[in-house]
Amino acid sequence: MVGLGLIGGSAAAALRRAGLRVVGHDADPAVAQRALDLELVDAVAGLDRSVNGAGLILLATPLGATVHLLPWVDALAGDDAVIVDTVSVKEPVMQVAAGLPGAERIIGGHPIAGKEVAGPEHAEPLLFQQRTFVLTPLPHTRPAALDRATRMVRALGAIPRRLSAAEHDRILARTSHLPQLLATALALSLQEGEAALGGTGLQDMTRLARSSPVLWQEIFLANAANVLQAAEVLQRQLADLMALIDARDAAGVAEAMERGAEATGEGWT
Amino acid sequence: MVGLGLIGGSAAAALRRAGLRVVGHDADPAVAQRALDLELVDAVAGLDRSVNGAGLILLATPLGATVHLLPWVDALAGDDAVIVDTVSVKEPVMQVAAGLPGAERIIGGHPIAGKEVAGPEHAEPLLFQQRTFVLTPLPHTRPAALDRATRMVRALGAIPRRLSAAEHDRILARTSHLPQLLATALALSLQEGEAALGGTGLQDMTRLARSSPVLWQEIFLANAANVLQAAEVLQRQLADLMALIDARDAAGVAEAMERGAEATGEGWT
Repeated sequence: MVGLGLIGGSAAAALRRAGLRVVGHDADPAVAQRALDLELVDAVAGLDRSVNGAGLILLATPLGATVHLLPWVDALAGDDAVIVDTVSVKEPVMQVAAGLPGAERIIGGHPIAGKEVAGPEHAEPLLFQQRTFVLTPLPHTRPAALDRATRMVRALGAIPRRLSAAEHDRILARTSHLPQLLATALALSLQEGEAALGGTGLQDMTRLARSSPVLWQEIFLANAANVLQAAEVLQRQLADLMALIDARDAAGVAEAMERGAEATGEGWT
Repeated sequence: MVGLGLIGGSAAAALRRAGLRVVGHDADPAVAQRALDLELVDAVAGLDRSVNGAGLILLATPLGATVHLLPWVDALAGDDAVIVDTVSVKEPVMQVAAGLPGAERIIGGHPIAGKEVAGPEHAEPLLFQQRTFVLTPLPHTRPAALDRATRMVRALGAIPRRLSAAEHDRILARTSHLPQLLATALALSLQEGEAALGGTGLQDMTRLARSSPVLWQEIFLANAANVLQAAEVLQRQLADLMALIDARDAAGVAEAMERGAEATGEGWT
């Protein structure tokens, strides 16, 4: 386990509960120590010792760190080891992976779970329970490697879902990156002190605006083309709703709201 | 208590817990019966009997019904009675109120609380606990009437906040009506079946899209000018964020997100 923040710490704790031994590493020794104190991992070690001998290496680091670490981890890992990352934009990671000697055993991963707080002290072994965990293999990924990654996802309590990196990034732009951007835009539309006049609806709609700016600017830029396309679709939908309101078209507004309610779909994970 | 749905039923239950006797009325006898069965009210009665003799009449009906009922309730209520409504757009209600014989004892009300479900079976006596309850008196409201309305708000467990109807409608356009509109626009931007790939963030951001279309088209149209103005501010904020992403301006995106986090403010009620 490389990276012992919220995602890495939660995954480590879940895998330990599933009976697996987890050796963790974090670039910040204080984070590693906290993860050990919280018993999220069996042991902590340097990067080489935590990777060497592991059957599966989960990288739970942000995009920049992951792209930087992947070649090292690929070089340090045993021939039979499988490497899975957890970055929420997959194309930049898979482009790096495709060029590495061990490309056939590197599988992109993205657990659709998280919180607006960070760090091992917020880790929970049940964070991934019944959540979708996307796996993005390369065309030449070894079937046995994909199989091991899929078993790891199940051991986390999550539901594996296979997508190409490109499909993943297009869909997540709409279902995750756009909601994040909108929460910030909505928060910036408020005037000072009036948040208290919003109630739980506003609270839900702006909670995401308190997510990590550093983490998210990286995601927005790494998936810029898809995010901008998703935002343009939203702009058109909003403009259509505004035109209906401007025309005082009661039936049209109600009909659009009914379609919106249907579009929220079933089967939240 | 006129109207025994979610808001009226919850207010009735809260006032009963505060030791007051509540006679309820609902245009739908089945709703009135359910409210009685659920012990939300002490008794149910026709409109005239529920209004006549009451010291305070709370109207918990949608905008159209409220505007229609106000003249009747004003005519039926005793000279000393105070009338408070609960409609979430205040100018159309207060315009009607201002023209009535009993204008000096009619006070606009808006409890900033609710759920995306309706009906007395979802009523809760604690729905208003520690929530803001806006009161919009007219310039010539009797001080004693405002005082009685304020005591009723406190009996509900809510925090009274006085605003003019115009101020209320401008602020609520940003803090309530715009979030509602955005939730629908976001839901309509999704493609079929991909909601499951969104996680709790998307879930929070689209929950409001399942609110009542009939209730909300009425609110949007009644507050159209303010809602459109708020939506235009949001459009500009979103366009600014998109421009930063398009320019791959990492520091600019992070800085905007930090401002957004600050703007979510403290003191949610």
